[in-house]
Amino acid sequence: MSSTYGENLKLTIFGQSHGPAIGMTLDGIPAGLPVDSEELQSFLNRRAPGRNDWSTPRREEDRPEFLSGIVDGFTCGAPIAAVIHNRNTRSGDYDSLKDCPRPGHADYTAQVKYGGFQDAAGGGHFSGRLTAPLCVAGGLCKQWLREQGISVAAHIQRVADVWDRDFDPVSPALDQVGPDFPTLSAEAGENMRRRIAQARFQGDSVGGIIQCAVTGLPAGLGEPMFGGVENRVASIVYGIPAVKGVAFGAGFSVAGMRGSQCNDPFILENGTVRTSANAAGGILGGISTGMPVLFQAAIKPTPSIARAQQSVSLRERREKTLEVRGRHDPCIVPRAVPVVEAAAAIAIYDLILGNTQTNRRK
Amino acid sequence: MSSTYGENLKLTIFGQSHGPAIGMTLDGIPAGLPVDSEELQSFLNRRAPGRNDWSTPRREEDRPEFLSGIVDGFTCGAPIAAVIHNRNTRSGDYDSLKDCPRPGHADYTAQVKYGGFQDAAGGGHFSGRLTAPLCVAGGLCKQWLREQGISVAAHIQRVADVWDRDFDPVSPALDQVGPDFPTLSAEAGENMRRRIAQARFQGDSVGGIIQCAVTGLPAGLGEPMFGGVENRVASIVYGIPAVKGVAFGAGFSVAGMRGSQCNDPFILENGTVRTSANAAGGILGGISTGMPVLFQAAIKPTPSIARAQQSVSLRERREKTLEVRGRHDPCIVPRAVPVVEAAAAIAIYDLILGNTQTNRRK
Amino acid sequence: MSSTYGENLKLTIFGQSHGPAIGMTLDGIPAGLPVDSEELQSFLNRRAPGRNDWSTPRREEDRPEFLSGIVDGFTCGAPIAAVIHNRNTRSGDYDSLKDCPRPGHADYTAQVKYGGFQDAAGGGHFSGRLTAPLCVAGGLCKQWLREQGISVAAHIQRVADVWDRDFDPVSPALDQVGPDFPTLSAEAGENMRRRIAQARFQGDSVGGIIQCAVTGLPAGLGEPMFGGVENRVASIVYGIPAVKGVAFGAGFSVAGMRGSQCNDPFILENGTVRTSANAAGGILGGISTGMPVLFQAAIKPTPSIARAQQSVSLRERREKTLEVRGRHDPCIVPRAVPVVEAAAAIAIYDLILGNTQTNRRK
Amino acid sequence: MSSTYGENLKLTIFGQSHGPAIGMTLDGIPAGLPVDSEELQSFLNRRAPGRNDWSTPRREEDRPEFLSGIVDGFTCGAPIAAVIHNRNTRSGDYDSLKDCPRPGHADYTAQVKYGGFQDAAGGGHFSGRLTAPLCVAGGLCKQWLREQGISVAAHIQRVADVWDRDFDPVSPALDQVGPDFPTLSAEAGENMRRRIAQARFQGDSVGGIIQCAVTGLPAGLGEPMFGGVENRVASIVYGIPAVKGVAFGAGFSVAGMRGSQCNDPFILENGTVRTSANAAGGILGGISTGMPVLFQAAIKPTPSIARAQQSVSLRERREKTLEVRGRHDPCIVPRAVPVVEAAAAIAIYDLILGNTQTNRRK
Repeated sequence: MSSTYGENLKLTIFGQSHGPAIGMTLDGIPAGLPVDSEELQSFLNRRAPGRNDWSTPRREEDRPEFLSGIVDGFTCGAPIAAVIHNRNTRSGDYDSLKDCPRPGHADYTAQVKYGGFQDAAGGGHFSGRLTAPLCVAGGLCKQWLREQGISVAAHIQRVADVWDRDFDPVSPALDQVGPDFPTLSAEAGENMRRRIAQARFQGDSVGGIIQCAVTGLPAGLGEPMFGGVENRVASIVYGIPAVKGVAFGAGFSVAGMRGSQCNDPFILENGTVRTSANAAGGILGGISTGMPVLFQAAIKPTPSIARAQQSVSLRERREKTLEVRGRHDPCIVPRAVPVVEAAAAIAIYDLILGNTQTNRRK
Repeated sequence: MSSTYGENLKLTIFGQSHGPAIGMTLDGIPAGLPVDSEELQSFLNRRAPGRNDWSTPRREEDRPEFLSGIVDGFTCGAPIAAVIHNRNTRSGDYDSLKDCPRPGHADYTAQVKYGGFQDAAGGGHFSGRLTAPLCVAGGLCKQWLREQGISVAAHIQRVADVWDRDFDPVSPALDQVGPDFPTLSAEAGENMRRRIAQARFQGDSVGGIIQCAVTGLPAGLGEPMFGGVENRVASIVYGIPAVKGVAFGAGFSVAGMRGSQCNDPFILENGTVRTSANAAGGILGGISTGMPVLFQAAIKPTPSIARAQQSVSLRERREKTLEVRGRHDPCIVPRAVPVVEAAAAIAIYDLILGNTQTNRRK
Repeated sequence: MSSTYGENLKLTIFGQSHGPAIGMTLDGIPAGLPVDSEELQSFLNRRAPGRNDWSTPRREEDRPEFLSGIVDGFTCGAPIAAVIHNRNTRSGDYDSLKDCPRPGHADYTAQVKYGGFQDAAGGGHFSGRLTAPLCVAGGLCKQWLREQGISVAAHIQRVADVWDRDFDPVSPALDQVGPDFPTLSAEAGENMRRRIAQARFQGDSVGGIIQCAVTGLPAGLGEPMFGGVENRVASIVYGIPAVKGVAFGAGFSVAGMRGSQCNDPFILENGTVRTSANAAGGILGGISTGMPVLFQAAIKPTPSIARAQQSVSLRERREKTLEVRGRHDPCIVPRAVPVVEAAAAIAIYDLILGNTQTNRRK
Repeated sequence: MSSTYGENLKLTIFGQSHGPAIGMTLDGIPAGLPVDSEELQSFLNRRAPGRNDWSTPRREEDRPEFLSGIVDGFTCGAPIAAVIHNRNTRSGDYDSLKDCPRPGHADYTAQVKYGGFQDAAGGGHFSGRLTAPLCVAGGLCKQWLREQGISVAAHIQRVADVWDRDFDPVSPALDQVGPDFPTLSAEAGENMRRRIAQARFQGDSVGGIIQCAVTGLPAGLGEPMFGGVENRVASIVYGIPAVKGVAFGAGFSVAGMRGSQCNDPFILENGTVRTSANAAGGILGGISTGMPVLFQAAIKPTPSIARAQQSVSLRERREKTLEVRGRHDPCIVPRAVPVVEAAAAIAIYDLILGNTQTNRRK
């Protein structure tokens, strides 16, 4: 398999960057769930290109057309299919990418795997553009989670050497993420934008970290071992291009902690069991504790940069200097924020659909 | 699902810490693969408890009995089943764990999910002991990978504040991992053992990071989007108890890199396409480049510590101080090293079984 | 799951009878496979309505538009997506079907399952129209099988009380199926058409049996137990509306056979192991023998008939007489023939993709 | 995959006829379900060999040992593992089966697929003995279904030319199946036993049909298209060795029916929607109607017969006469009755676990 995710729902993402359309099918969704199209569009707009100074000027509408599965504003129980038609369709010669692969992109691995039959134009199926249909599916799941009192929000935790404040791990303020630039600290946001502008000016790019929080999850969600919240969230978040690391709660910092620091003490709060800290990121043994689920995704710098780079000609079997033309996001982290939320929402909703929690008490 | 992994092979891990036996079934393995039982036993011994000063004195044989799937030293095409009988079986009263959950353990989440029906003794199905059957499956996969020229090895990259040397990302020396204590630098190993001894003395525990390398992988392995090497490796590695982070190549450091640093230049080496650096950890677009695959797993400090901790009585609904009795590993990182190798080997072998690489060239 | 099939490929069928479009996504297909669009269209035309005297006059083009996965006539390794736009889209009031379900249709079960949110128009997702995208996927798989020397063909074995000749189980003449009406005996075909015309004249409908043969399969395909050729073929063929029985080889006749008749003797033919009879339908232990695979699908009479029928008003909780308006196929068996071929082709191609046959000999 | 079944539960069957043990793992079962071991043993005894005059004299205890997943008589949420130790273990030379395959058995297909590495002794993994662990899983599922008011029972509908009465499709009397010999009519049972004795006397074997009924199913169970009750039941029932046909409701008879006969009229009975007939076998559009689910499985005659048969020597590439030694069931139909019930129970329980029925009404 490849572009299909889910144990209980089945999401398939299709399309290539410059093909006629991209889209998704989402099977296994119960009937009777409301769909708010306007809200979905607002969510998609957070990801859409061409809307600001830090992203690529390619402008696509990203307006999904639903072909099935939704009738009169409610899911009907049949698979949902949505397409987004591409305007910038394939034209011109992209065969150079099959000969001289761009460093940091999937050009070379696609060439090896698909033997030249891959759609190389604009990165084809590996393009970041394919995160648009992921956001369609994720935007829907976000709405259905909210119906159950579950919220998902992310912010930029780091760009280059600039760090935002962290979410409070015990009670993250999801509504304090900036509407224009998704940070908790407006000042950090300003500094990040400055780093991005610098990188662009220098024909280079920068990476970052996104931190995501899910609140309102009941305790007891997730299955042991390979079906835990961590496994399932990581396995979809790594489907977002450029993600090179995923970590939960205190993440890689646990390596430097003592058990006495890392174990979150249990407390009672108005009769509810909670923990007074949240190094676990809301997950013990793969299963939700009822505390906020927190995770980070490390995003590498955009591989498309203006500088000349070292590559090879696969046909002529010689080394060669490559210059990538076109304008590209000098930092994809801001636009990846809703994509991380979408991925998290899909993973969580899938877990909810398949939850095997017992109804009995011993 | 829960304790079942794999797209092409199907691995199910069963058992509870103090039940009659733990074990695994492994379905989907081709016939005719040789099995070296002695080598498998050596691999399992690396994980087994009670063999040194830094781990729990509970001593189990960890000698798997194969019930099916292997005949005369070769796989026969039928599912492989192996059991390891437990000697320390359930006795005494473990119900206190259902009432007063240990911080950092799955006691509370299991209680919520399973309503008191879970096997609480020794952590039940959530016990680290369940990594033994994972190592049986992984030890087999390691052997079958080696037949194809693929090697998997890991070392301790960090314990507490002590760091080992990294694997050279371009040509990792897998054979330089210490036989007694799995570090590249013997001195770092000495210091780590000292930190572990300190923590034990203080009734506390320490965490760490394991770095794993896979060499000899052909280019073109892995599927796009959700079927990439990263997704599939992360999704099994998070099945190892205590893992809170998984990252590939430069990992979370990519956040601080420029594109011009993070893009690995393509070069030709004796006619073969390689990259002169390996920030990508051997993976672009989810697909192997032919360079070593490198990843890290962050391991939290053992949650079982000797110190008094804050918990709650679930029945009496009041806060309560808990003391965890018994002796435990003050650091599980050393014993987790072969487990990480096992998980990686299973994920890679699963990907190889389902590889859809084309045979044609355009 | 529901509308998703496959272990190695993942096929999702979407759409409702009167929604904007129907279609499919097909993930997991290797790159470099040729696609002959004209031949695919000819195949689809065999299923399309409105082309003859025995089927519904609703006429749809059934011309798939490929949105992804195929570039310049070859698969590119990314998921294939195809849509067929509906012309007869939803209009008018179909709510009567939610109140007063048609006997033999899924109206009642959909109402119970989806609570009134289902798309009732024209049967919604349960409509026979959804077999068009199944034929798109199956038509592609047929082409790819033929590349490997594997052919799939079906004929009408029975309509009402008229029987066609059977395929010779040892060497079925796939090319002798009639081009206009898919029987082996033209005379039987004539008689079947007469029965269908009679049924139509009487405001009624008739059922039948389709027999399908797959030739050229190598021996050794299929997995034991639940992954056998029979399990996998049956599990997709039951996805065709109106199928109530699936049987292999001698099928239900085995019940009346002796072992000495039912065991197919092994023989050598030009050095190749074959069987001199084929009661097994080319399958032993779920695995192909190298002989033709033969199976039957029993198709119930079209539930839409002109006669008044007994039903209930779900809202008023009272019994009620129902008259189904509109014109419908008095027999869907002829149009189901390519659909059965499509289903078989998909199942077989899926098995080939995941084949775990060993390369070694002991 | 091969020996693994289920979308929501995951059942893996392992073992070979003459290996050390056979068994199963069953993952995905909620905690807190009661297990009645005695009742399970009674169920298993219905399948066990050596207990009467019509089956093989090989006598195995078939007493499962549970290694995990059940604590104090209740499921604990972890995977259930059970083993049955074999007494008749491999000894002697079974290589003749690799050279000269028995007609009607999987010897030849296993040899081709596994290249001689298969465990040929007693049919290895293809042996009917592997239905014992299937019955362990199915016996558990039957108990859990009964807790929900769902009953599963089967009887022999036909052996050779002798037919039993059918279950009444509208209200099948599950409790009227004979305790010693599973027919509804004692006289039919007597005649069947006579046919079986005749066949044995003549060194031959006979086949038959099993009819199974599931009552108490709520309406709305099953998913559309490939996830229907028919697809899922057929796909596991074909995992029982010797099954060559599976059909629902009126089954293959639908081919000779008119729509006006085959459409089951809806009626109201004490305010409940039912159908006055049940040609649909309780399933419309793949989804349960609330009427009894009825299906048939056609079982071929035991392939092991005493008569000389025609086969080939694979090594010497010449035709050869084969005599199968040992005593075998001249008819496996009686012992297959609980196996069919087990398979049905597993399929239905799996569907219940993944049921996506809506809670809302429009």
